[in-house]
Amino acid sequence: MSNAITRQKVNQAIGLLQATDIDVWLTFARETSQTPDPALDLILGHGVTWDSAFILARTGEKIAIVGRYEADNVRNTGAYDEVQTYDLGIADLLRQTLTRLGPKKIGLNYSLSGSEADGLTHGNFLRLTAMLHELNVDFVSAEDIIRRIREQKSADELALIAAITKTQERVYAEMFKLPLRGMSEVEIQTRSHAIIADHGCEPDGGANANPIVNAGPDSSIGHGMPNPNLTVQSGQILHFDMWLRDKQGYCADLQRCAYVLRAGETEAPDLVRRAWDACWIALEAGRAVLKPGVQAFETDLAAREALQECGYPEYMHALGHHIGRKTHDGGSVLGPRWERYGDRPFKRIEAGNVFTLELGTIVEGYGYIGLEEMVVVTDNGTAWLSTPQRHIALI
Amino acid sequence: MSNAITRQKVNQAIGLLQATDIDVWLTFARETSQTPDPALDLILGHGVTWDSAFILARTGEKIAIVGRYEADNVRNTGAYDEVQTYDLGIADLLRQTLTRLGPKKIGLNYSLSGSEADGLTHGNFLRLTAMLHELNVDFVSAEDIIRRIREQKSADELALIAAITKTQERVYAEMFKLPLRGMSEVEIQTRSHAIIADHGCEPDGGANANPIVNAGPDSSIGHGMPNPNLTVQSGQILHFDMWLRDKQGYCADLQRCAYVLRAGETEAPDLVRRAWDACWIALEAGRAVLKPGVQAFETDLAAREALQECGYPEYMHALGHHIGRKTHDGGSVLGPRWERYGDRPFKRIEAGNVFTLELGTIVEGYGYIGLEEMVVVTDNGTAWLSTPQRHIALI
Repeated sequence: MSNAITRQKVNQAIGLLQATDIDVWLTFARETSQTPDPALDLILGHGVTWDSAFILARTGEKIAIVGRYEADNVRNTGAYDEVQTYDLGIADLLRQTLTRLGPKKIGLNYSLSGSEADGLTHGNFLRLTAMLHELNVDFVSAEDIIRRIREQKSADELALIAAITKTQERVYAEMFKLPLRGMSEVEIQTRSHAIIADHGCEPDGGANANPIVNAGPDSSIGHGMPNPNLTVQSGQILHFDMWLRDKQGYCADLQRCAYVLRAGETEAPDLVRRAWDACWIALEAGRAVLKPGVQAFETDLAAREALQECGYPEYMHALGHHIGRKTHDGGSVLGPRWERYGDRPFKRIEAGNVFTLELGTIVEGYGYIGLEEMVVVTDNGTAWLSTPQRHIALI
Repeated sequence: MSNAITRQKVNQAIGLLQATDIDVWLTFARETSQTPDPALDLILGHGVTWDSAFILARTGEKIAIVGRYEADNVRNTGAYDEVQTYDLGIADLLRQTLTRLGPKKIGLNYSLSGSEADGLTHGNFLRLTAMLHELNVDFVSAEDIIRRIREQKSADELALIAAITKTQERVYAEMFKLPLRGMSEVEIQTRSHAIIADHGCEPDGGANANPIVNAGPDSSIGHGMPNPNLTVQSGQILHFDMWLRDKQGYCADLQRCAYVLRAGETEAPDLVRRAWDACWIALEAGRAVLKPGVQAFETDLAAREALQECGYPEYMHALGHHIGRKTHDGGSVLGPRWERYGDRPFKRIEAGNVFTLELGTIVEGYGYIGLEEMVVVTDNGTAWLSTPQRHIALI
């Protein structure tokens, strides 16, 4: 994690506080190896073990209160003007510091609509509000601040996201050099993990179901584990979905497909090619709508309708998600106005946002076609961060 | 993750519910790649993306409600009798299912005293209780159930923990074969990551500060990042702390030390050896107290006092923690009765618990000595899971 970016994000948050009625944004966390708070990725760059408080005030104060052994790591970020330490318990120091700052409204890391701003556990919420019950303050959600510092990528961040995207493309290039034919989904996944490690990356969120490997029509689509009994066979589609994180802490998320030629074939059958083209028509229809100011669902709707107009069923997920410090980043989603997406499809797009664009379709008897590329939103539209897979690979 | 262990843990939870007044234990989670619920490691074995509910009833029902694309992974565990799926939103299905079960008291994953049972985010608590407000039920903490299924290791689990412990010892053996002299903390950590990957493991909780590498007296003790400017030098102590997870999802956590001989030296200086021996006396004093029925703090107190009686300052952390599916596992801690440990030191030890035993001391001018071993609690005392490092290594 770059300390420079941590400092940028902390200062960006202070700036965003000015536009709200929140006096203090308080991130309260413990044992983040068990229950991480996604906001810490941005305003600290690493986790904490003991009870820790990160206090950013509208008046510009940047204060951390952490266990003694964790203070050096916090000081080394250079993001906090004051790093207070304790040995026995955090409550007294936290009360004293907040009493000195005198906030009326404290923003906390909880959100009804998305996990990225929902890092405060319910137990910690109860503990925190009990510690501070004498203070007579209102607690509100800090979600707008957390989302904006995630979604508004700095130039430094865009460079890092572009780099991991290129790295993931190199990982895919090596995966496509594997023998593949006759290999099982599990074997391919295992080999991919070595390639990923060679490139200094890791599967984001654990390696069990990442990358997804779908060999042919009998494979389980979605976030499924690879199957040891399904092997790559002629006349089938091989589909990968992989989301990687690099040592700088940034993520890429791309899908790639190949068709496994039968004896005598020199290209994929019509059925496969027509589905592939329809998916690309739909993805481009969505991308054409993606620009600052539109509501997130509008892009999804354009892609969804285009795919249906081509004669394929609508996909049962969102067209895309923010990506950056997390694979699923930010607060809006390029998704339909379905209950499970809450208010996220209604948010507006801003320049500097980075999104995946993804959709797919099942080709009966052949397998799953899935496209997924990455773009950055510019002032007038989008620019590719990935090198789009315009043609299905042939094996 | 072994589906057999997932099924064991789900059934163990049903059994534990009988001894409580909780009718239903409900785990409610979404986007666990961002905000994981540690309980899912046990009762599912992997994460979820969409809103998901795992319902275990005292009457024996085992029901999961998950997004359509995630159903196969849940069914494949064999742990749930019923796997319901949705496309648009979870609320209706969840309300219907709970109405059918008719619980008066629902246990949720929040805890004031420890993260392992505190996986429910505050935002999800608010969403869940809003979805269920018509139901007229009481919500209580499920922490006792969550802790017991973590702490009471099955024979299968003990075998897996023993295996990763041996693996970590092999990783350390290879690290001690590195040139080491003149290498920086950062170089050693980077090399260790390749060795760890070769052994099919990963640093638990991320690789940035794991393993900890402390070269000599100027190194930052605790959960510090390695320093690129500190190199291994004659006349200094080299200290490692590493916590690994293997592909089966179980963890080991051990510290190891070496003394770097000066020209002409054949053993560590008196000051170092005396401190080493004192640490071992203290660790054994703590271990002697560790058996079923004692309160967790009693073991810490014995070790702490023994170290002080040897003339060394008390260590500013706990003597040990549960370890298993997580490096910091379970609900009790072998720690002092300090505010920051809450009620955890007061819990009682049970047979089948697995603990680390760890303590250390700074040797002025030489560096940090830290011991950390792993034991399983037997009916009458403990058995080693690690091969104790009885003598400081010499480089």
